[in-house]
Amino acid sequence: MTDARTLSQADVLAAAARIAGHAQVTPVLRSHSLDALAGAELHFKCENFQRVGAFKFRGACNAVWSLSDDEAARGVVTHSSGNHGAALALAAHTRGIAAHVVVPAGAVRSKVAAIRTFGATVHECAPTQAARDAMAADIGQRTGARLVHPFTDPAVIAGQGTAALELIREVGALDMIVTPVGGGGLVSGTALAVAGCGQSIRVIGAEPSGAADAYESLRRGSRVLDVVPDTICDGLRATIGPLNFELMRKHGVQVLLVDDAETMAAMRLVWERLKIMIEPSCATVLAAVLRHRDIFAGQRVGLVLSGGNVDLDEIRFSAIAAQ
Amino acid sequence: MTDARTLSQADVLAAAARIAGHAQVTPVLRSHSLDALAGAELHFKCENFQRVGAFKFRGACNAVWSLSDDEAARGVVTHSSGNHGAALALAAHTRGIAAHVVVPAGAVRSKVAAIRTFGATVHECAPTQAARDAMAADIGQRTGARLVHPFTDPAVIAGQGTAALELIREVGALDMIVTPVGGGGLVSGTALAVAGCGQSIRVIGAEPSGAADAYESLRRGSRVLDVVPDTICDGLRATIGPLNFELMRKHGVQVLLVDDAETMAAMRLVWERLKIMIEPSCATVLAAVLRHRDIFAGQRVGLVLSGGNVDLDEIRFSAIAAQ
Repeated sequence: MTDARTLSQADVLAAAARIAGHAQVTPVLRSHSLDALAGAELHFKCENFQRVGAFKFRGACNAVWSLSDDEAARGVVTHSSGNHGAALALAAHTRGIAAHVVVPAGAVRSKVAAIRTFGATVHECAPTQAARDAMAADIGQRTGARLVHPFTDPAVIAGQGTAALELIREVGALDMIVTPVGGGGLVSGTALAVAGCGQSIRVIGAEPSGAADAYESLRRGSRVLDVVPDTICDGLRATIGPLNFELMRKHGVQVLLVDDAETMAAMRLVWERLKIMIEPSCATVLAAVLRHRDIFAGQRVGLVLSGGNVDLDEIRFSAIAAQ
Repeated sequence: MTDARTLSQADVLAAAARIAGHAQVTPVLRSHSLDALAGAELHFKCENFQRVGAFKFRGACNAVWSLSDDEAARGVVTHSSGNHGAALALAAHTRGIAAHVVVPAGAVRSKVAAIRTFGATVHECAPTQAARDAMAADIGQRTGARLVHPFTDPAVIAGQGTAALELIREVGALDMIVTPVGGGGLVSGTALAVAGCGQSIRVIGAEPSGAADAYESLRRGSRVLDVVPDTICDGLRATIGPLNFELMRKHGVQVLLVDDAETMAAMRLVWERLKIMIEPSCATVLAAVLRHRDIFAGQRVGLVLSGGNVDLDEIRFSAIAAQ
């Protein structure tokens, strides 16, 4: 069984080789005006341009292509409110195998539609973690499909780390890399990627103050499981995973909190200045940089823009102040 | 005096050399799902990533750097509701000369702010063409500043053509290139760029049906000057210029009309599928391809996405149907 001790940068490098040809090498964008606003040098790794519109494709793709032929033949199953579901559906499609995705009632419409587009079977369940787990387990038992957890799966974590690997390869030395924190797949994969790269890069997680379980867990030294998420960031409501938490502790990841209002203002800035679509969860990274200026001032900062799947019907910009 | 007979691809090539190092070489994006929707192969030239967020920087930059040192020392002046004003302001800044921009009362806020950011002097006038012309002429007389018209200036037209030049260089053979039509700077510059490239590429203009002066002018064989524009596309309300009209006729440019509702649906599609911000005027090109499927079916089509400066406060997506 993989744990935080055995998982390393080698797993990220192996993932990069495995997903090459399936995943996009996404661009890195810069903005003079955002640099000026932050007082730092910002390098935006644009995973909104990744397939399915989110970094999640990296981890799902690595998990699917890590399976033996026998395992793959029985398909894969997961539970996901959105991006991971679409990512696993497409990853399964690239290998020509079946995918089952358990989706809670009320999930973002555009994301559920994407899952179906890629040929997966969607199973709707009650919007509780227990209901999701139970239905995914049941499907696994009935079909033999392999569970690919959205963020605690080691292959998923290693796959997510490939975004940071590309970022470092493209822009060279960085002082820090900021990623959003939900279940912790991206931030812990980033910590793995950075650990063996020969640079001293701090990895920082940006978490909504309305879903501050990772922040609280690090502060107390053990996973806090009773946070009831209250945030507009639909991709960051999950509770930090056990393996993810151990990796964050091992690699000294720090978590910074941001309010939803700061996140929405940051999202607007990215839309207006970089001319790209990012989803709210994704904007936490710029919100963190703008809120905690003392930490980032004068630094070369990589920001992983995690995804661009916005439900436009839900956006009311007239309510969000321009800066 | 330059006219439609003497202006040629050589002027576009000269413009490309002149603006290199100032203007961005913008990326070309593709989308499987938009190809499927259109039944054609679509190549999106992303001028929303151009400096000041619009292709207009190309023409303004070519005009500014075409001036002699003596002319340049007296500065430049223009009237523009937005993107051209910001473009000329930045172009003047790249040469270290003064810029005066006449802006009609009620112009898009974010665009006027951009003009000031680049150090130009903004002069507000009544929102009529006569008032704009008069104020720009007056400033020119008082200061000696050279008028750089948003679309009838030959150097501006040649500069706008450089976007198509880059597009052809990057993607190779195309059957047609579609651009928006307002005053006609981009579409006539594109026609010039294409004319000598050794390929048989049709140039097509997409025009709002609520500002169909170019369409009507081509149909009647002479410029129609009495159209009162009624369209959400704030960049396409100008009347087609004389030189632009002659170039369109000479090079056999066709104009297709689109309704604002089609344009807004197309804008939403680009935001959702390409994950990039484009402004309404810009979305006319995809709207035209989706409305006139018979013309584009099975073709390799270049679409010039002209700009990405959206006033987000004005956008209400809940009113625009998803596709």
